[in-house]
Amino acid sequence: MVLRLGTIVEQLGGELFGNPELDIQALAPLEAAGPQALSFLSNPKYRQQLAASKAGCVIVAPAMRDEARARGACIVADNPYLYFAHVTQLWQRARQRPAGPRIHPSAVVDPGAQVDPSALIGPLCVVERGARIGAHTVLKSRVTVSEDCVIGERCVLHPGVVIGADGFGFAKDGERWEKIEQLGAVRIGNDVEIGANTCIDRGALNDTVIEDGVKLDNLIQIGHNVRVGRNTAMAGCVGVAGSATIGANCTIGGSAGVLGHLSIADGVNVSSFSLVTRSLNKPGHYTGFYPLEDNASWEKNAATLKQLSTLRERLRALEKELKETKK
Amino acid sequence: MVLRLGTIVEQLGGELFGNPELDIQALAPLEAAGPQALSFLSNPKYRQQLAASKAGCVIVAPAMRDEARARGACIVADNPYLYFAHVTQLWQRARQRPAGPRIHPSAVVDPGAQVDPSALIGPLCVVERGARIGAHTVLKSRVTVSEDCVIGERCVLHPGVVIGADGFGFAKDGERWEKIEQLGAVRIGNDVEIGANTCIDRGALNDTVIEDGVKLDNLIQIGHNVRVGRNTAMAGCVGVAGSATIGANCTIGGSAGVLGHLSIADGVNVSSFSLVTRSLNKPGHYTGFYPLEDNASWEKNAATLKQLSTLRERLRALEKELKETKK
Amino acid sequence: MVLRLGTIVEQLGGELFGNPELDIQALAPLEAAGPQALSFLSNPKYRQQLAASKAGCVIVAPAMRDEARARGACIVADNPYLYFAHVTQLWQRARQRPAGPRIHPSAVVDPGAQVDPSALIGPLCVVERGARIGAHTVLKSRVTVSEDCVIGERCVLHPGVVIGADGFGFAKDGERWEKIEQLGAVRIGNDVEIGANTCIDRGALNDTVIEDGVKLDNLIQIGHNVRVGRNTAMAGCVGVAGSATIGANCTIGGSAGVLGHLSIADGVNVSSFSLVTRSLNKPGHYTGFYPLEDNASWEKNAATLKQLSTLRERLRALEKELKETKK
Repeated sequence: MVLRLGTIVEQLGGELFGNPELDIQALAPLEAAGPQALSFLSNPKYRQQLAASKAGCVIVAPAMRDEARARGACIVADNPYLYFAHVTQLWQRARQRPAGPRIHPSAVVDPGAQVDPSALIGPLCVVERGARIGAHTVLKSRVTVSEDCVIGERCVLHPGVVIGADGFGFAKDGERWEKIEQLGAVRIGNDVEIGANTCIDRGALNDTVIEDGVKLDNLIQIGHNVRVGRNTAMAGCVGVAGSATIGANCTIGGSAGVLGHLSIADGVNVSSFSLVTRSLNKPGHYTGFYPLEDNASWEKNAATLKQLSTLRERLRALEKELKETKK
Repeated sequence: MVLRLGTIVEQLGGELFGNPELDIQALAPLEAAGPQALSFLSNPKYRQQLAASKAGCVIVAPAMRDEARARGACIVADNPYLYFAHVTQLWQRARQRPAGPRIHPSAVVDPGAQVDPSALIGPLCVVERGARIGAHTVLKSRVTVSEDCVIGERCVLHPGVVIGADGFGFAKDGERWEKIEQLGAVRIGNDVEIGANTCIDRGALNDTVIEDGVKLDNLIQIGHNVRVGRNTAMAGCVGVAGSATIGANCTIGGSAGVLGHLSIADGVNVSSFSLVTRSLNKPGHYTGFYPLEDNASWEKNAATLKQLSTLRERLRALEKELKETKK
Repeated sequence: MVLRLGTIVEQLGGELFGNPELDIQALAPLEAAGPQALSFLSNPKYRQQLAASKAGCVIVAPAMRDEARARGACIVADNPYLYFAHVTQLWQRARQRPAGPRIHPSAVVDPGAQVDPSALIGPLCVVERGARIGAHTVLKSRVTVSEDCVIGERCVLHPGVVIGADGFGFAKDGERWEKIEQLGAVRIGNDVEIGANTCIDRGALNDTVIEDGVKLDNLIQIGHNVRVGRNTAMAGCVGVAGSATIGANCTIGGSAGVLGHLSIADGVNVSSFSLVTRSLNKPGHYTGFYPLEDNASWEKNAATLKQLSTLRERLRALEKELKETKK
C-alpha cells in the first residue's frame, strides 16, 4: 500500500511542509516510524519523541509547526489526532479488497426483515423477522439481530454481537421463577459501533434504546429497558443492569458496572472497575475500586478494613477521653 | 394485538371489576399506560401512581381492591407481579407468528445427537455427538451444545451460548502448561434459562451440573465441575470458578465472582461486584465492593487505605499512651 | 472405555506396583474412585484420602511410595499431576470417535486464507482473507478469525472465540467520535488455548501478539496492541486494555483487569478481581479487592471508608495533642 503525501493533503486538508511526491508506505507511532511512514504528535508532552523520530512526515498542531519543520516534513492540522483518524480511514479505503456479496449466502435473513440495499450482512449472521438494518450498516460475521430490533445507519456490529435476546425478567412463584415475556425490542441509532460478543437485551414492555454515536467495546452487557445517551462510550466488559438511564457524552471504564433503575447525568466519567450504585445527577469523574497492593500488604489492610467502623468508634472515644483528660 | 379483558381472566383467574369486553391493546407500566392498556401494581409504595394512572385496567393485590376500584377497572390477584408474568406469556402466545422449522436447516446437528421432537433448534446452532436436548427446549440462534452434554425440558438457551467447552485445566511441566483433557460433560436440568453468550464448561472427570429452575443472565462464566442448585438466579457477567458448589434459591448479583472449590449454602444472596472467597455456610446477604465516590475523594481515601493497618497500630499506641498518661 | 494399567505405563513411563492386567474403566478423584478407577495424589496434604480411597490404582510421588503400596496398586511418577494430565490425554485419544471433515462444510473459509492441511476447522467457523491457521490447530465451532490474523500450531480455539475484531479506537471530533481504522492484525503463537467467547482485538497500527504457550479461559477481553508473554495464563472474564504488555509466566485471576499502556514483569501473579493500574516491574503476588462481609457489616465499614482520610487527620491531630499534653 502506498499513498502520496500530496494525495493525503488534497483529500483531508491541512498545510503540508515537505515534498508532496513522498510515497507513504506505512502509518506508525513516532518512535517506530521510518522514512516512508507518516506519524503524528497529538500531545505536546511527547515533543522529545518528535525531535528523535525518523518518520517521513509528522502530523502536528499549529503550535508545534516550527519545531516540526526544523525536524523535516510535516502536516499542520488543528487536531492532529483527529486528522490521523481520517488518514487511517483513507488508508483503509485505499487498501480495501473487493467486497463480498451484500448479504453473505451463509447468513440467515428472514424474509420479513428489512435490510437496506447499502448494508452489508456478513457470513453466518442471523437477522430475524421484523428486524430493520439501516443504510451503510455492517454486520461482520456471526451477529444476531432478533425479532423487531432496529439498527440505524452507518453502524458496525462486530462478530458475536447479540441484539435483542430476552431481558432477564422473572416473577417469584413460591421458590420457582416465572418468566416475564420480554415484549419490547431494541432500537439503535446511527453511527453506533458495537464490539465483539457484546449483548443488548430487548425491553420488557418498552424498548431498550441506544442513541446516535454510541461506541461500545467488546463483551459488554446492556440489560433490558436501558437507555444510553448520544456519543457515550463504554470500554470492555461493562455491565449495565435493567432500566438504567445513562446520559450523553459519558465514558464508562472497563469492567465497570451500573445498577438498575438509576440515572446518570450527561458528561459523567466512571472509572474502570467502579460500580455505580446510585443516580449521579452532576457531571464529573467517579471512582470506586480497591487499590492494588502487594498481596501481603493487602492481606493486612483488608483484614483491618473489616474493623473500620470499630476503629472509628475507638478514635472517637479517644478524642473524648483526651478532651476530658485535659480539663 | 388485542386481548379481551374477559379472556385474560377466563384464562388466568383473578377477580375482574370492570367491563370484560374492554379490548387490551398493550401492557404498560402505570405511568405510561393509556386507556387501552393493562398495568399492574406490585408494590404498595407506588400506590400514588395507581391513583394517577390512565390505565384501562390495573392488576392489584386484595389489600388494594378498594383503592383500585375507586380509580376504575381492576383485576384482583394474590400476587399481582406473578399474575402480570402470566399475562406477558398469554400475550406472547397470542402474538406468536408461525414457528419456523423444528430444526432450522442451517443448524448443524450431529446424527449421534438426540433432539426431542418438541424441541426447537434455531439457525446456525451446533449440537454435537451424544448431546441430548429435552422436550420443549428452545435453542435460539448460534448456540453450541458440545459432545455428550444434556439439556433438560422447557429450557431456553439464548444466542451465542456455549455449553460444554473444555474446562480450564492444565498441569505445570516446568514453565509449560500441559493440558488436562476434560472428560466430563454438562448436565442441565429442566426449566433452566441461559442468557446470551453465557458459557458453561464441561467437567474434568465428573460433570458440571445446573439444577432445575436455574436462571442465568448474559455473559456468565461457569467453570468446570461447578454445581448450581435449584432455582438459583445469577445476573449478567458473573464468573464462577471451577468446582464451586452453589446452593438452591441463591441470587448472585451482576459481575460478582465465586472462587473455586468452595460451597455456598442455600438461600445466600451475593451483592453485585462482590467476590466470594470462602465457603458461606449460612443463608444471608453478603457484600464486598468499594463504594463509589467522586474521584478526588476516592484518591485520598484509597491512598489512606494502603496504610490502614499502620493506622490501626498508631491508634492502638495512642490508646496505650493515653492510658499511661492518665495513671 | 477401558485401558490396561500396563498399557498406560508402557506409554507414559512411571513405575507400576500392581497387576498390569487391571482394566481401568474410569479416571476419578481419590474419594470417588472405585476398584476399576485410576486416581492420583498430587498434594501430600491429602494423604489421608489416599489411605481411605477405593481406587484400583493411584498415581503418587516417590515420597509417597511406601504409603501407597501399603494401600494397594500404584504408579510412582515424579510429578503425579503432570502424569495424570498425560493419562487424560491418552484416555481422550483412546475414546476418540472418528473425526469429522477437516474443514466442516458449514464453515466459511475465504479462498485467500491459508489453512494447514492438518488443522481442523469446525462447524460454522469463519476464516477471513489473509488469515493463516497453523498445523494441528483446532477451531471448534463458531469461531471467527478475521482478515490477516495468524494462528500458530497446535492451538485450540473454543466456540464463540473472536480473533481480530477492531480495537476500540476513536478520536474526538467535538462531541462525536471519529473512528480510527484498525490497520494491524493479531498474531498468536504455538500451543495457545483460547476459551469460549473470548475476544482478542486487532492492533491499531501494529499487531496484537499472544506468545507461545499462553492459556486464556472463557469470556476474556484482550484489547488492541496488547502483548501477552509466553506461558502466561488468565482465568475467565479478565479484561486487558489496549497496549498493555504482560510478561511471561504470569497468572491473572478471574475477572481481574489490566489498564492500558502499562507493563507487567515476568512471573507476576494477579489475584482475582484485582485491577492493575500501574506497571509492575517486579515479580510477585498482587491483590486489590474489597473483602467479602455480611451485608450489614459491609454497610458500616464502607460508609466509614468514605471518611478514611479524615480519620487519618483526626488521628494525626490526636497524636500531636497527646504529645503536647504530656509536655
